[in-house]
Amino acid sequence: MLTNFYIEDHVKNALQEDMSFGDITTDYLTNETDVMSCELNTRVDGIFCGKAVFETVFKILSGGSVKVKFYVKDGDEIKKGQKLADIEGPARYILTGERTALNYIQRMSGIATETNKYQKAIGNHKAKIVDTRKNTPGFRAFEKYSVKAGGGSLHRFNLSDCAMIKDNHIRYAGTLTAAVKKLKENISHAHRIEVECDTIEQVKECLECGVDIIMLDNMSLDKMKEAVNLINGKAVVEASGNVNLSTVADIAATGVDIISSSSIVAKAPTLDLGLDAK
Amino acid sequence: MLTNFYIEDHVKNALQEDMSFGDITTDYLTNETDVMSCELNTRVDGIFCGKAVFETVFKILSGGSVKVKFYVKDGDEIKKGQKLADIEGPARYILTGERTALNYIQRMSGIATETNKYQKAIGNHKAKIVDTRKNTPGFRAFEKYSVKAGGGSLHRFNLSDCAMIKDNHIRYAGTLTAAVKKLKENISHAHRIEVECDTIEQVKECLECGVDIIMLDNMSLDKMKEAVNLINGKAVVEASGNVNLSTVADIAATGVDIISSSSIVAKAPTLDLGLDAK
Amino acid sequence: MLTNFYIEDHVKNALQEDMSFGDITTDYLTNETDVMSCELNTRVDGIFCGKAVFETVFKILSGGSVKVKFYVKDGDEIKKGQKLADIEGPARYILTGERTALNYIQRMSGIATETNKYQKAIGNHKAKIVDTRKNTPGFRAFEKYSVKAGGGSLHRFNLSDCAMIKDNHIRYAGTLTAAVKKLKENISHAHRIEVECDTIEQVKECLECGVDIIMLDNMSLDKMKEAVNLINGKAVVEASGNVNLSTVADIAATGVDIISSSSIVAKAPTLDLGLDAK
Amino acid sequence: MLTNFYIEDHVKNALQEDMSFGDITTDYLTNETDVMSCELNTRVDGIFCGKAVFETVFKILSGGSVKVKFYVKDGDEIKKGQKLADIEGPARYILTGERTALNYIQRMSGIATETNKYQKAIGNHKAKIVDTRKNTPGFRAFEKYSVKAGGGSLHRFNLSDCAMIKDNHIRYAGTLTAAVKKLKENISHAHRIEVECDTIEQVKECLECGVDIIMLDNMSLDKMKEAVNLINGKAVVEASGNVNLSTVADIAATGVDIISSSSIVAKAPTLDLGLDAK
Amino acid sequence: MLTNFYIEDHVKNALQEDMSFGDITTDYLTNETDVMSCELNTRVDGIFCGKAVFETVFKILSGGSVKVKFYVKDGDEIKKGQKLADIEGPARYILTGERTALNYIQRMSGIATETNKYQKAIGNHKAKIVDTRKNTPGFRAFEKYSVKAGGGSLHRFNLSDCAMIKDNHIRYAGTLTAAVKKLKENISHAHRIEVECDTIEQVKECLECGVDIIMLDNMSLDKMKEAVNLINGKAVVEASGNVNLSTVADIAATGVDIISSSSIVAKAPTLDLGLDAK
Amino acid sequence: MLTNFYIEDHVKNALQEDMSFGDITTDYLTNETDVMSCELNTRVDGIFCGKAVFETVFKILSGGSVKVKFYVKDGDEIKKGQKLADIEGPARYILTGERTALNYIQRMSGIATETNKYQKAIGNHKAKIVDTRKNTPGFRAFEKYSVKAGGGSLHRFNLSDCAMIKDNHIRYAGTLTAAVKKLKENISHAHRIEVECDTIEQVKECLECGVDIIMLDNMSLDKMKEAVNLINGKAVVEASGNVNLSTVADIAATGVDIISSSSIVAKAPTLDLGLDAK
Repeated sequence: MLTNFYIEDHVKNALQEDMSFGDITTDYLTNETDVMSCELNTRVDGIFCGKAVFETVFKILSGGSVKVKFYVKDGDEIKKGQKLADIEGPARYILTGERTALNYIQRMSGIATETNKYQKAIGNHKAKIVDTRKNTPGFRAFEKYSVKAGGGSLHRFNLSDCAMIKDNHIRYAGTLTAAVKKLKENISHAHRIEVECDTIEQVKECLECGVDIIMLDNMSLDKMKEAVNLINGKAVVEASGNVNLSTVADIAATGVDIISSSSIVAKAPTLDLGLDAK
Repeated sequence: MLTNFYIEDHVKNALQEDMSFGDITTDYLTNETDVMSCELNTRVDGIFCGKAVFETVFKILSGGSVKVKFYVKDGDEIKKGQKLADIEGPARYILTGERTALNYIQRMSGIATETNKYQKAIGNHKAKIVDTRKNTPGFRAFEKYSVKAGGGSLHRFNLSDCAMIKDNHIRYAGTLTAAVKKLKENISHAHRIEVECDTIEQVKECLECGVDIIMLDNMSLDKMKEAVNLINGKAVVEASGNVNLSTVADIAATGVDIISSSSIVAKAPTLDLGLDAK
Repeated sequence: MLTNFYIEDHVKNALQEDMSFGDITTDYLTNETDVMSCELNTRVDGIFCGKAVFETVFKILSGGSVKVKFYVKDGDEIKKGQKLADIEGPARYILTGERTALNYIQRMSGIATETNKYQKAIGNHKAKIVDTRKNTPGFRAFEKYSVKAGGGSLHRFNLSDCAMIKDNHIRYAGTLTAAVKKLKENISHAHRIEVECDTIEQVKECLECGVDIIMLDNMSLDKMKEAVNLINGKAVVEASGNVNLSTVADIAATGVDIISSSSIVAKAPTLDLGLDAK
Repeated sequence: MLTNFYIEDHVKNALQEDMSFGDITTDYLTNETDVMSCELNTRVDGIFCGKAVFETVFKILSGGSVKVKFYVKDGDEIKKGQKLADIEGPARYILTGERTALNYIQRMSGIATETNKYQKAIGNHKAKIVDTRKNTPGFRAFEKYSVKAGGGSLHRFNLSDCAMIKDNHIRYAGTLTAAVKKLKENISHAHRIEVECDTIEQVKECLECGVDIIMLDNMSLDKMKEAVNLINGKAVVEASGNVNLSTVADIAATGVDIISSSSIVAKAPTLDLGLDAK
Repeated sequence: MLTNFYIEDHVKNALQEDMSFGDITTDYLTNETDVMSCELNTRVDGIFCGKAVFETVFKILSGGSVKVKFYVKDGDEIKKGQKLADIEGPARYILTGERTALNYIQRMSGIATETNKYQKAIGNHKAKIVDTRKNTPGFRAFEKYSVKAGGGSLHRFNLSDCAMIKDNHIRYAGTLTAAVKKLKENISHAHRIEVECDTIEQVKECLECGVDIIMLDNMSLDKMKEAVNLINGKAVVEASGNVNLSTVADIAATGVDIISSSSIVAKAPTLDLGLDAK
Repeated sequence: MLTNFYIEDHVKNALQEDMSFGDITTDYLTNETDVMSCELNTRVDGIFCGKAVFETVFKILSGGSVKVKFYVKDGDEIKKGQKLADIEGPARYILTGERTALNYIQRMSGIATETNKYQKAIGNHKAKIVDTRKNTPGFRAFEKYSVKAGGGSLHRFNLSDCAMIKDNHIRYAGTLTAAVKKLKENISHAHRIEVECDTIEQVKECLECGVDIIMLDNMSLDKMKEAVNLINGKAVVEASGNVNLSTVADIAATGVDIISSSSIVAKAPTLDLGLDAK
């Protein structure tokens, strides 16, 4: 999902952002021949994410002279104090790149960790936790990749790959049925149609016109169960609204297929990882 | 700090990320002549930030036909339920741009709000809360701008504008004094030198060689006070480590000038803002 | 589907490609005050496509001083000799931009025209002609937009928005059923799964494991009919292979939902449009 | 003519266009260790073009782990069924890159093949077939390279490298002679001047004021011969208009030096090449 | 030669280079409502160049609220103390953009001025002073434009628009004649061929094989005259080497058509222009 | 200060500028197998600068097949006739890249050489020569790097990393003291404040409000001495105005810390370096 060339371009931009005219500390205090060995360690428990990005930061800065050896892969559970990687090479590139490399993986691992908590809370229910489009502008690919690494599933990537009919679309189309009909006439057969429903009546209307995904928006648990029974496998059922770690299991218990939540990305704290010189 | 052209380029990239091949729902369900009026409202209390960015999203999409009228400016306190802006214009641009526009301002306002809590907790002490370089890659300018809007102050922008000597730099230079000396010979007179100190001995060494900023890294409150007394105005004193909403006032009470914390950015949750159609 | 800012960036690149160091003829032979009036005419029958792109070329070059007034919109049928637009403004911008503007709309209209022929050949059958991913690199958005303008429908935009299982994917997954199963476990609920089938047995296997779209690849008309009957509405049926203007109606008559063909894009000749000075 | 770095940037953009958020089929259905061997074969006769571009697609995706061994070079005649290259390496990069790689070489080989037909039709006449500026926006360098590979010659690259005086330029300069005179005073001595002539009178006027290239625009064969005799080596003679495979030999027989035609690029169908797994 | 969109992109990059995180002086010391009036004055005599670029800097920063009124145009002679333009608008944009705007026009006017001195020194001789490819990387279009504005003429834009055969090319081709022959077989008819000659023998060889431009490289004045006589109008004659303000008239007197010199660009000092607040 | 990726992107742009459609001379006159050996020599005395940039040009063009072996490093003194490097590899890449590679290092070495003359003229005085923001747009990082290589020191990088209060800022703030006060309330503790002073009174005002750097703008030598005595180590003292090779020693003798001059960059002639084939 994250291609090499996409990561490289993103990292170059991040490095440029962090060192427009160089690293005035390291440039003057290290020599080209100074060599450094250090470890990437985690200060807390969590799920690791960002191996390729971390490696790319140092590859770009050092042209390959900094060697990174990872002992974990994306999605692995990590424990406080665990060594994740050894880094070795010219001190100047390690010192200069440290912050940028950590900025990526702390945020990515933070999202993976948060996602994982939700998926674990769901337990044996069939529901999957998925993200939303509430992303940091310019960072979506990394955020979605991290959700997946954390054991979550993904919602649509953007406005192009799945249609989602909301209140306002219905308003301009006239009725829910009219909106679905008009969309079906125009949309690619390769794309799904989802409808946001606030009421059981809307769910019924969806079933009549035939849609791929029915989102139950901010419904009570009872209404959700009612909807799940009504839908009965004729569409994917997605629950949304009031999703947090204490509600997610109950929502899953209603029998929905998908639980979407912006919290796993937008409100996930960064994970505390750090480099320690040997 | 955020120039028009920087915002425009960033927003174009974010829109491209969110609509690689268009908005397949809105493109098909609205007509060019459908017009919409809506309000930007806040669901919670906080500090608003992101006016120019919000406006730019709709300007770029609509070429100016969407009109945005704001009733608040960046840094203003906002109260749950308050109307922040009226938006009016072609429905298709409003519906397509809504999520991207909100993604910016929810994150920016979240940071401004978190920063503000820290600065308020400091109360009448002279200390200023400042950010760090722990940013989302590619989003730093927006994050720093938001810290400032929230009433915080800023640390260095990146590795180019202020030198910061840490343990590893000292290691390669030999001693703290040698590092400072070497840096002074090479650095621009336009730039400051900061040294990260773990001990009172290092603080003393800094005072002897003369540096602009002394960072007290993870010191106890007592040590901080001792350091502040020692330094006695001969350098800016910055406290770092274990900074959170319950410790920040005590840290400020030690008399330090600056309290730096990554939490105001890296761990700030997004602020809940939303568009409501009239 | 084509946003203003995407068109603008593409056009700037095209203009730079065509005038790295300016237009050495027009720069020296026209004065800033020379004004020109001309018409965009079609030399042949066809379907027009590219209005916004044509306008953008002149807007970018002239900053708005060249006025373009169109009498047709994208998707309109046009007849040999018909005037499509009036263009008026500084001669230098019109002369410099003419070729680039025509390059876009001749290719776009060519695709729209070719697509339209296929859709018309299908007649009253329910099948829709759709494109493929056989595009000119860097020009896909324009090509897909043109297919739509010509009355066609679209296949997936790229590798991200719909899964398509082909022979080689099956080989690595073990069996068709294993591939579908593995994909369903991993793919977003927002995305569809299509399987390329060469045989009726594969079609049956698809029906057993449940997929969204079944592609009948290079099947005879009889096999297609058999497959359509078997599938019986349980999946979208797409026909592919040997699609041309003389076969498309027969293929449609088998009852398939979708007929995909690269010819409507990759082999469409440009449409002969031209500017004529008044 | 096509530099490595130009190809690389173009290919990265094309890959991004085709996989904004990855290849959701291949990413999930192949493992990093799955290896694949396949052949690039041609389904039809033609002229091959695009070796470096094809190689670059896989180099960028795989970082070099996909090995491509070509048995032909650009400009070689290829026969239906001929193996052009062996490709070997990680299955995921081959499956993901296949379409983009083919999109380049099918279009490039299509142009080379079409160009070659024209040049062959010209036979032993001295005339060379050349292209025009009727290119796909953003793809010109590849198209011009393909014309050359097909045995054609090239016209000017863009508006900067050769002046071409057309009707409208003459109108603003007053007379053809005035236009040439004004241009000679201003143009670089490194650049040529071409004039588009509709009549023998204009040809004579060109000879009087001295130009480098005289284009005979849409003249009859007789008029062309008359012009060639008149010009008698004092300028390069270029024929344009009504050039197709059945007219090109007769045009060449008039003795012109250059025959320009947009058809070899703008109307060339793609060449049918494909990857076959072993 | 300099298009609006090229200037705009270049200026945005220059502004980003000069204000990565804003103008920390002006941002804090001016209010949005502070208005400023100032003049662009010249401190010395010279030739002005850069009007559109200067205007663009302020247009981009201010969105049009800074008004610039010029009293000179590119290529005009200006006298010490002369007012060149009035600038009026928000103080913050004027103060922030001043240096970048001046950086462009001081360098451009410096080149125009230097070029003009050479052309004036040539006096009534027919020779034109032209530039070379010795440019500042990334700034060529501005430098070439300035040479033209200063009354000079231009050499080829880059390696694509005119062939120039030098010693090393001859070495690989075998002989000068072989090189010219091979080039004629391959090069576009739209492009000229120039040969660098060190000796009269080479000049003769050029005349025999027929080339467009003969460059006399570092020849004595006597040799130049001999060459001019030999060539006698059969090719453009360009003199190169040891060109400076005290030699250029004598070189021109030999009858050459073109005198090329890198000094007019690479060694031109910037022209002293400045903004003065009213 | 110059990172690999920054250099690479800049060089790619410069090469594209110089060869939009290839090198039509070298492409046709050399074969892929032609190999060339040459030397980089200096025609004059000076300071060398630009090793990494020179190497990057050939690395990008040749993918590493051109080998460059340097015998000097940035900042080294070089003597007329000295060999600086051996270059060996495919002739086509060397011939095509020669001019671009030289364009960088001739300008960079020119600046290093000019800077060095100023620093040497200062002799044993403690003052350092520093540059200004009078740079070629888009080329600043290379120019600043060259100043440093020449033995100079640097002024601020851009408007973001150090505040400089000038006349106009004072005007909008009310008084010098008010400006300093307002700035101190807003500026990062990581950044310095400099004030441009025209009079001794302003110097005194600066000392009262406390600033980091006091610039003496266009003061007489006597006034400078007076200011230096007054300031007496309480701020860095920078002299500016009328700085040239004959005045710089006298200015340094006044005891100032820093002498800033745009001449070392903006008026430095390029250094005459060249490639000679063996």
